[in-house]
Amino acid sequence: MALYVYKFGGTSVGSIERIKAVAERVKKVREAGDDLVVVLSAMSGETNRLIGLAKEMQAEPNERELDAMISTGEQVTVALLSMRLNEIGCPACSYTGTQVRILTDSSFTKARIKEIDDTRIRTDLTEGKVVVVAGFQGVDEDGNITTLGRGGSDTTAVALAAALKADECHIYTDVDGVYTTDPRVEPKARRLDRITFEEMLEMASLGSKVLQIRSVEFAGKYNVALRVLSSFAEGNGTLITYEESQMESALISGIAFNRDEAKLTITGVPDLPGIAYKILGPIADANIEVDMIVQNIAADATTDFTFTVHRNDFLRAKTILDAICADLGARKVSADNNIVKVSIVGVGMRSHAGIASTMFKTLANEGINIQMIATSEIKISVVVDEKYLELAVRSLHSAFGLEQA
Amino acid sequence: MALYVYKFGGTSVGSIERIKAVAERVKKVREAGDDLVVVLSAMSGETNRLIGLAKEMQAEPNERELDAMISTGEQVTVALLSMRLNEIGCPACSYTGTQVRILTDSSFTKARIKEIDDTRIRTDLTEGKVVVVAGFQGVDEDGNITTLGRGGSDTTAVALAAALKADECHIYTDVDGVYTTDPRVEPKARRLDRITFEEMLEMASLGSKVLQIRSVEFAGKYNVALRVLSSFAEGNGTLITYEESQMESALISGIAFNRDEAKLTITGVPDLPGIAYKILGPIADANIEVDMIVQNIAADATTDFTFTVHRNDFLRAKTILDAICADLGARKVSADNNIVKVSIVGVGMRSHAGIASTMFKTLANEGINIQMIATSEIKISVVVDEKYLELAVRSLHSAFGLEQA
Repeated sequence: MALYVYKFGGTSVGSIERIKAVAERVKKVREAGDDLVVVLSAMSGETNRLIGLAKEMQAEPNERELDAMISTGEQVTVALLSMRLNEIGCPACSYTGTQVRILTDSSFTKARIKEIDDTRIRTDLTEGKVVVVAGFQGVDEDGNITTLGRGGSDTTAVALAAALKADECHIYTDVDGVYTTDPRVEPKARRLDRITFEEMLEMASLGSKVLQIRSVEFAGKYNVALRVLSSFAEGNGTLITYEESQMESALISGIAFNRDEAKLTITGVPDLPGIAYKILGPIADANIEVDMIVQNIAADATTDFTFTVHRNDFLRAKTILDAICADLGARKVSADNNIVKVSIVGVGMRSHAGIASTMFKTLANEGINIQMIATSEIKISVVVDEKYLELAVRSLHSAFGLEQA
Repeated sequence: MALYVYKFGGTSVGSIERIKAVAERVKKVREAGDDLVVVLSAMSGETNRLIGLAKEMQAEPNERELDAMISTGEQVTVALLSMRLNEIGCPACSYTGTQVRILTDSSFTKARIKEIDDTRIRTDLTEGKVVVVAGFQGVDEDGNITTLGRGGSDTTAVALAAALKADECHIYTDVDGVYTTDPRVEPKARRLDRITFEEMLEMASLGSKVLQIRSVEFAGKYNVALRVLSSFAEGNGTLITYEESQMESALISGIAFNRDEAKLTITGVPDLPGIAYKILGPIADANIEVDMIVQNIAADATTDFTFTVHRNDFLRAKTILDAICADLGARKVSADNNIVKVSIVGVGMRSHAGIASTMFKTLANEGINIQMIATSEIKISVVVDEKYLELAVRSLHSAFGLEQA
């Protein structure tokens, strides 16, 4: 007999019929003898509806009040599922974050979980009940309702799985797992049976938005086996774990890409100590996040300095950089927001040489010019012209044999 | 500087615009220097919408889950009002029943308040904040969310006023006070400036549904001055208190009526001890509430026994009574659901004789036959044919001079 934590997102509980379908699925697992804790989001659209009401009341809604209000969305779905389970002969009981006591800090709208009291849940499980918990929410020391931010229900599920030492945490979503790359770009993309936490983090932060990064970090930290599955189809989804043994043969696991970046270059900067800080300090002060950074020393003892930012911050960053350029007596600023970052990700890189050169050769063969390169232990990212995105992804997908299991 | 508890019902917070109007009203009072605790219902229709969802999940929704779910309606309105108040420069903070800690028993859907913790409210009031409390809900010893039943927000307001020793508890509703009778039946009906708790209880239980009986009882028990006012119009409404001094001149305060009753008579019952129990015992066992009871001994040493029940229970009561009739060897059962009960209510009866005879004479003058009579210390009720309802009410209203202040 195993203990599972299942999490169903907003589309999975988006209507009466879907909640009934979730109940049937839960009942089947329960009847097979496993213990189950189910975490739910609000019905899809509900949280945004409530935020809309809030904004009619207050231009920038008070965050304490906002959290108290939007937490009602999950309070409704958990009660509905619990009713349905009881109706179909599967004893169940629902809890809000306050009732479980999912203790968080007081950072309204983006609270962090500090502690989970598992007493009531354990008692219910012992009595054979399915426990249904409102995702996305907690309570602070003073009894104020908090929420965990977008995607917070995933975090709730993983944190509960960790606290309860569950065998697996299943995240039911509208995709049936993690793919080698986005199937809309490469139709040959293949669902992965397994992926490591580290790879998943790189994939997620690079734009494969299946799971919230925070919940993956949390799962990795507490070694919670995480499985991503479809709410609407059968299948085993993708398991995210630490176990690499069965994946040794795979050099890389997937290809991620990100269209949301823009590139800024300042050339002819006098090559003096502290130059990186002088350039990036004002950018950071303006709350602009920098992703890739490349610095090269030119022959004339000046430096060329290139970095990428989110496209939303592109114009602000350009303005700041123009001022810095004048200050430093640098040659010029060039800016490009028609770029894309393509990354290959895989723990296999650790033990295999030659992966980078395979990547560069593949891109060269297709005539794709590489504008920037950045590497980490399990990832190599390149910046290329936006128009090459599909070509780059497909040629790399094929070069690394990702279409075969 | 006074402390008021204001309660606004579902229609008063039924839209964004109305919540904004409530905020303006509250702000004005606060700025005049008084302390304010505001109790809100859910937006009109919301509770029924949620109950509808629940019934799609479970034929008879689990009451614990139902309470957790429907309590979200008030959780939303209090957050919205609090946001609005903060937006217009009137500091405010909202609380659910759990957060205040309105401790109740565990009778889900009809819980009773046991205790209110006023710590957080007092702190906020001291800091100059308006405190906005979700009506209708509480929490039991185990942290389960409970609701107080229909009209529970009135009870929340009165209980808070009692706990905080507020100067007055204002119930804002869609009528502007308590009337001498229903203005739809007697257009000359007049709003009362004052009425006593006892009179209000008799008026309410007899069908003038302005306030929930429980909240009036509660107010009477804890001596909370209760005022009924309109959310949508100016005016002082009706004050409900113990003070009778200013009302001494009024013989009766109002005329109530109830169209929801039906009359059952069993005639020719052998007049033996215990006969009332033999008749009413089985009725009570069937969970049918009996209102008026009249028993007369006939010349032939048999008894005629008449009582009224709610019309919804009429057929069931008739069936039971037919069986009893056969058992007891009584003559026959007659039943009539075309009746109405008309009552005059007033504390003035205590000190004035002749009120009953004025009532009977007035009805006789109009040719209205009285079928049953029941009296209490401050009320006289008669049962008459339904078709005489309007005539009876209007003639009594005029006979007791109720159209004049």
